[in-house]
Amino acid sequence: MIDSEYKMVIVTRDDLKLSIGKLAAQVAHAAVECTLIAKKEKSKWFREWFNQGAKKAVVKTDVLDDFSIYKKRADKLSIPAVIIIDAGHTEIAPGTQTVLGIGPAPTNLIDQVTGSLSLL
Amino acid sequence: MIDSEYKMVIVTRDDLKLSIGKLAAQVAHAAVECTLIAKKEKSKWFREWFNQGAKKAVVKTDVLDDFSIYKKRADKLSIPAVIIIDAGHTEIAPGTQTVLGIGPAPTNLIDQVTGSLSLL
Repeated sequence: MIDSEYKMVIVTRDDLKLSIGKLAAQVAHAAVECTLIAKKEKSKWFREWFNQGAKKAVVKTDVLDDFSIYKKRADKLSIPAVIIIDAGHTEIAPGTQTVLGIGPAPTNLIDQVTGSLSLL
Repeated sequence: MIDSEYKMVIVTRDDLKLSIGKLAAQVAHAAVECTLIAKKEKSKWFREWFNQGAKKAVVKTDVLDDFSIYKKRADKLSIPAVIIIDAGHTEIAPGTQTVLGIGPAPTNLIDQVTGSLSLL
């Protein structure tokens, strides 16, 4: 039997045109939230993913509606998923959805959710 | 008495010229590592920081040597600090130090370490 590979995917919005620092911070918010959820609720997935090097893929979409679609798909597969909403102190309006974190989860499972998105 | 504000700081390297996606993933690696260390070893700081919204500041340096200098300063103040070393499958050579995560910690303490660095 071949052990699964695990990864986390963070979906960014191509339309927002955030600064690099702001974007990186948003991606980090999602990664931290998903990690904490997985540690609590999906401890086996969390351990496997972390021991494999905690792979993270940052991808992009230009359709904001994708966030809720992908989140629903992740929920159905019991994959941790978090939409980050920015407080909007800088750059963007309060309440803006900036990134969507999904996983960690087995790669073959998470690819059913975001496999069509290309890397940022 | 006024409660402390908490933040995490992630230091990036201006000289590396990573793609945005690669940079964001490295920042996320550091944020996750620091979060897990703090959760385990600095649970009060972790809780305060997380409950305040888990603030993260992404800053930059153009001097790689800064990483070890800042890490030593953080160690002396018992602030979680992790240097991320990339496996180098893409873009950069294996073993490259890409980012340095520091914190979470009280803002007045962490500013003693990285207060001179500007936002990315």
